[in-house]
Formats: sequence, C-alpha cells, structure tokens
Amino acid sequence: MPVTIPLITLLTDFGDRDYFVASVKGVILNINPQAHIVDLSHHVTPHDVADAAYLLKSCYRYFPDGTIHVAVVDPGVGTTRRPLLVSSSRYFFIGPDNGLFTHIYQEETGVEVRHLENRQYRLDSEGATFDGRDLFAPAAAWLTKGQPIGSFGRLVPNYERLPISEPSWDKHVMAGEIAYIDRFGNLISNLTAYHIREVRGITKRADPYIRIGGVTIDCLVHSYGEGSADAPQALINSNGYVEVFLKEGRAADRLNVARGARIELS
Amino acid sequence: MPVTIPLITLLTDFGDRDYFVASVKGVILNINPQAHIVDLSHHVTPHDVADAAYLLKSCYRYFPDGTIHVAVVDPGVGTTRRPLLVSSSRYFFIGPDNGLFTHIYQEETGVEVRHLENRQYRLDSEGATFDGRDLFAPAAAWLTKGQPIGSFGRLVPNYERLPISEPSWDKHVMAGEIAYIDRFGNLISNLTAYHIREVRGITKRADPYIRIGGVTIDCLVHSYGEGSADAPQALINSNGYVEVFLKEGRAADRLNVARGARIELS
Amino acid sequence: MPVTIPLITLLTDFGDRDYFVASVKGVILNINPQAHIVDLSHHVTPHDVADAAYLLKSCYRYFPDGTIHVAVVDPGVGTTRRPLLVSSSRYFFIGPDNGLFTHIYQEETGVEVRHLENRQYRLDSEGATFDGRDLFAPAAAWLTKGQPIGSFGRLVPNYERLPISEPSWDKHVMAGEIAYIDRFGNLISNLTAYHIREVRGITKRADPYIRIGGVTIDCLVHSYGEGSADAPQALINSNGYVEVFLKEGRAADRLNVARGARIELS
Repeated sequence: MPVTIPLITLLTDFGDRDYFVASVKGVILNINPQAHIVDLSHHVTPHDVADAAYLLKSCYRYFPDGTIHVAVVDPGVGTTRRPLLVSSSRYFFIGPDNGLFTHIYQEETGVEVRHLENRQYRLDSEGATFDGRDLFAPAAAWLTKGQPIGSFGRLVPNYERLPISEPSWDKHVMAGEIAYIDRFGNLISNLTAYHIREVRGITKRADPYIRIGGVTIDCLVHSYGEGSADAPQALINSNGYVEVFLKEGRAADRLNVARGARIELS
Repeated sequence: MPVTIPLITLLTDFGDRDYFVASVKGVILNINPQAHIVDLSHHVTPHDVADAAYLLKSCYRYFPDGTIHVAVVDPGVGTTRRPLLVSSSRYFFIGPDNGLFTHIYQEETGVEVRHLENRQYRLDSEGATFDGRDLFAPAAAWLTKGQPIGSFGRLVPNYERLPISEPSWDKHVMAGEIAYIDRFGNLISNLTAYHIREVRGITKRADPYIRIGGVTIDCLVHSYGEGSADAPQALINSNGYVEVFLKEGRAADRLNVARGARIELS
Repeated sequence: MPVTIPLITLLTDFGDRDYFVASVKGVILNINPQAHIVDLSHHVTPHDVADAAYLLKSCYRYFPDGTIHVAVVDPGVGTTRRPLLVSSSRYFFIGPDNGLFTHIYQEETGVEVRHLENRQYRLDSEGATFDGRDLFAPAAAWLTKGQPIGSFGRLVPNYERLPISEPSWDKHVMAGEIAYIDRFGNLISNLTAYHIREVRGITKRADPYIRIGGVTIDCLVHSYGEGSADAPQALINSNGYVEVFLKEGRAADRLNVARGARIELS
C-alpha cells in the first residue's frame, strides 16, 4: 500500500455545465485546502460503467504513486450497492462497487478492497443521495490528510467485475472486439501486438488481414497521417491496441459499428 | 469578514473553446502564482444571470471559508453597471451588480457590498471592456495577496437583486416554480421538504400530488434508480428541493416546460 | 531567457471526453508533483494549427514570466516534423514545428528555438506516437525541475511559420481579413485602432465604413450591449482588434463568412 499524496483525480458522468463537479471539489478543498485535484473526464457517457472503466484503465497509471483516483459513474446511487475504497501497491481508488474498477483488479498488484462504511467520513445531507459529494469526495480528502486506510471500513472479499472479453482463436481467425470508441470515432479494440504476432506465426504474412464491419484492412500503418479519407486504416495505438480509424472522418460511423463489435485478425 | 485564502473559483458564460477563461487565469496567476483556481462552470447559458445565480447558490457553500468566488455573467459589461466586491462572514464574491449575488444576500450573514472602484487593481487595456480579465480577475488576485477589503472601494447601500419567487398557498394548492433545469433535463423546483410537510398537514397523505406540465405525479421516490422511463417521477434532491425527472430521459422535454414553469403540491 | 516556474499551460485539440488530456497531466505530475497545470483550451478545431496559434497569441502574455506553454495541435505527429522547445525573454513554448508558434516568433524578444531531441526526456511507449504524452509533457515537466534548456537539444536556425496576412491599402480601401471566429460566432479581424487612424487620416470621418460579407457597417460601437439583433455591428475588442458581432446572434452565420474572409475599411 502506497503513502497517499494530496493528488486526487476525478472521473464522472456529471458533465461540465452544472454545479455537480464544483460541489465535489468544494467538499474536498474544505477538508484539505492543500489537495490538488485533476479532472480525468466528466464526459463519460451517462451511466456507462464500462466506458468509465476503460477510460480509467487508459490513464491512471501515468499518475504518481499515491494518487487517489475517484470515479463516480453510478447508476445504482441510492441503492444497496456498496461504496468502495480500493488500494493497490501504487494507488487508491474510490467509487461504487459496480465494476468500475474491473481493470484495476486485473492489472494492479497488492489489491485490497474495503467497504467505505465509516460514517465519520461522510457529509450529512437531506434528500436523494449525491454520493460523489457526500461520501466519495470526503473519503478522498480525509485520505490525503493521512487517515489510515483501515479506518474507512472492512475488507470485503468479493466485489463486482464487468465481463471482460479477451481475444481468442475462433477457427482460423483471432477474434477480438471493440472496447472503446473515442471522440474522433476511432475504434479501439482489445487486440495487441501480441495477438498480431500470434497470427503472423501462422500466416507468415508481416501484417494480418483485419476484418471489421464488413470491410477488410490489409495492413497496419504507423501514424494517423498515413491514413486515407476513403477507407478505414488500422494502427497499433499509443496504448498498444489495434485501432481502426478514418483519416478526417469517423470510422465508427463509416463502418456503423458500436462498442462490442467483433474484429478479426487472419 | 473572513481571512482570504488563495482559493478562487470562476463561474462564467465564456465556454471552454476560446482564450477568455485562460486570459482570466493568466492574469490571476501573474499577480499571485500561488493562487489555486477552481472552475465552477463556464457553461452558464450566455447572459443568463438567473442561471448563474442558481448555480452559484448550489455549490458556493461547500468551499472553505475565505474562498473568493468570481462570477462573470455580465450582459451589461461596458455600461454603467457597477463592479462589486461582496464579503460575508464566510466568503468573498466578485462580479457585476446585476443580481448574480441575489441568493448570497439572502443566505449569507454579515454581508457587505463594495463598489470595486480602485483603479490601482485594474489592468489597462484598449478596446471594448473585458472586465473578467481586466477588473474582476486582478481584484480577486490582489485580495489573495492580503490587500485590505476596504482599499477596493466604498460600501454601497443598494444593489441589484433578481426577483425570487417563493412558494405560497394558492387556494388549496401549494404553488412553486421550476428554478433550474440541469443538463439531464431534470426540473428543480423551489419546493422543499418544508412545503411537503405543510401540505401533508392538510391532506393527511404521506406524499403530495405533484402537478406540472399537465401531468400528476402521485408520490415521491428516493433515488433516480426507482424512476421509470415511461413517466416522470419526483424526489427530494441532494440540495433539498423537489425535483422532477425522467429515468433515462429529459423531463424538461417530455413535459415541455421551461424555467419558471408552475409546479403544484396538493 | 527566463527562469522557469512550475506553471505549465496546455493547448490541444484533444477535447475533454477521452483519456488524452488526463494522460498528459499524469505524466507531468509524475515527474513533478509540484507542477501547476492550467488548461488554455482543449477544443481547438482538430488539426487546425492556425486556430491554435491565434488562441495562444491571444492569452499567453497574461501568464507570469517563466510559464511553460505546451501546445499540441499536431496533424504531423509520427512524421518527421520536429518537436521544438522555444524560449523567449519571458516564456517557454513546447510543441511541434508546424507554425503553432508563428505569432510568438513575431511578438516575443530573445527567441531561441531548439530541437527537442534528447531521448532522456522521453517516455518509452509502443505503438503509434502520442507525442503530447510521451515527449512534450515530459519535456515540460523536466524543465520545471530545473533541467538546463541546452540539455534538451540543439538550436535550430530555421523553423516553420504560418503565412500571416497583414492589412494593407488596396486602392482606396484598407483591406484586412478575419483571423479568428470565436464560439459566439464573432468575427475577429487583423485590423486595429492603428488602421482605423490611418483611414481616418484620409477620409476625415471619425469612424470608417466597414465592409464584410456584402454588408456595410458605418460606425464602431463601444460595447456588445450597444449592438442590435437586426444587423451586425463592429467594435474594437479587448485585444485591440476590430471585431464584427451580432447581438444575441452569430455574425459568422448571418454574414456567411469564414476565417480568412476579406474585411475592408474605407
């Protein structure tokens, strides 16, 4: 378990128009005016836990050890879903037990998951629950003040995970799926250089054929600049995944595919 | 009057595309590089002072004592409307005298209102006025540097207030209105648990009937999760107000109501 | 060359939805947790270097001496375009060599331009290049840690500049062009009070006639409040440029003009 630093990131589906994000920040700064708050994003598709989980997975590891990542995409707010405090050998994560931290459980070492149940660290408020403000924000702020992690609640042995699809051989093709679509309409798959090497071992071609949405792409390029506005191209993106893009266009729209769509290497 | 801390919040209708917000932040940091700046929102409906006033009211109190809240929604920029520095027993507020601080005058204690008239604390610039950058930002920054509040300008005895509608009995119904519509299309009224108790005292029903936009809602739920995609529901929201929402939809669009619309309890 | 302060601004076309901006911030804070990061804008029109250059020009000078301005609008990422570290007598600028810093070269003194080539200051990563995260962010962070500017790379004698159009006499009219269109649809020209005085010297009228998009505006007003919803008006804006606006409307749409459009004073 790392030592906390007063750095808190926020990932929500609150948008940037209303007073929701500001309320969360106010609560944190009221408890610890020295806290440094960084926005990961407030534009997660509303209630889309998988979208948020992917976004978190894609950037949390660039932050310094001891950073506290607060993620509030929480369709179950006000129900019995548990609030969690997760620690790993490098980071802390605070948010609802709804699968948001699935990739963290998979990728981090030394993971401990606690039920955030100590009412001392909550804000009292009337009316419908706003756990981002009343529960997750104060927990993060108190953590930066050095409250011991054990004081927040008990370890829980089981917690929610989203189903994560891993690429696998399906007859003669390596079948993966689209895991994330970014704002440019780029299609980010769960296929990596490792899968490409596996396919290469069989086909003996340098690049695989990539099939998605009814089209076939026959090679990988190295940068977006090499793409074409006429047809989608593919590359290995900066996080190591096979990504399908359309130069100056939206591959997602051109191919009419959504998250979860099948993508094949052969 | 509190002691200032170097924490400044910004609330504007500048959007996040252009150089307006960045210019304001640059001016503040040039005067006090130690200032900590938090965005409340830059997406207030352009020139909508009531929208900004409600947003400010909904989150300012979560910030630590001594915070300086700068609000620049200012359709009268360049006219004779006065720039103000408002102090209360907990906070400072800086912005135009156009009603932005109406809720502050009502909810804070120890309110003093000053005309921000000392030209020493202004930036000189040619052309049309950009008071956010040239006047409000420097005033906030100099305040964090410990300049005494009296040095900014004289107390003014009268200042603009927006008309605020309070719920009241209209024959046999408690009539309120929609005070704010958030980005999800949720309709936030000016009715509170207090008004519900008043109605309950007469009707003897646990929950009131809620009428808005031609529909009747017959009970309050406790969380958004309990709502329905078929018909709007109501709850008491996290700020204590009766709020009408549509699960996975926009109540404002479904009911075709705007801010100011009548809502009745009976 | 100024001494750096740990203040870094970010200007990109990454938008605010995905993990791109957060990754950049994480990398900076991982190298220097004391760094203070300010967003200039992440909503530059994608790949529009001229848009970004204008935005930077409009606000960089408000920041304290020693600020490091990082600008990543980089259609050539992954190609041979060079990454640059520019220093002037007041600031540092980091970004691709594609003309982003054209106005800086023109307006700053003591400009030195270096090729950011020292691989020590880069992040290793597989796949397509994400220079914002892997190259520009670490360079900025290491600069705030006091690494000497000479250690980042060699001085380069030549570097890209965008063509900048200056107003000039064209027979009897002073001809300028629209240099920037803001989110309100306001048309910001490259004409200043200086050009107005030149025209006045000849016409002897206090205000010039302003011709743009087929209409003629016959005087300058002093604030947006004096405008009209019926017809575009003009003023000298807060950065000293002649700006055409439509009260409560979008001048760009009403006049159907784009960046680069001709505007005449006579």
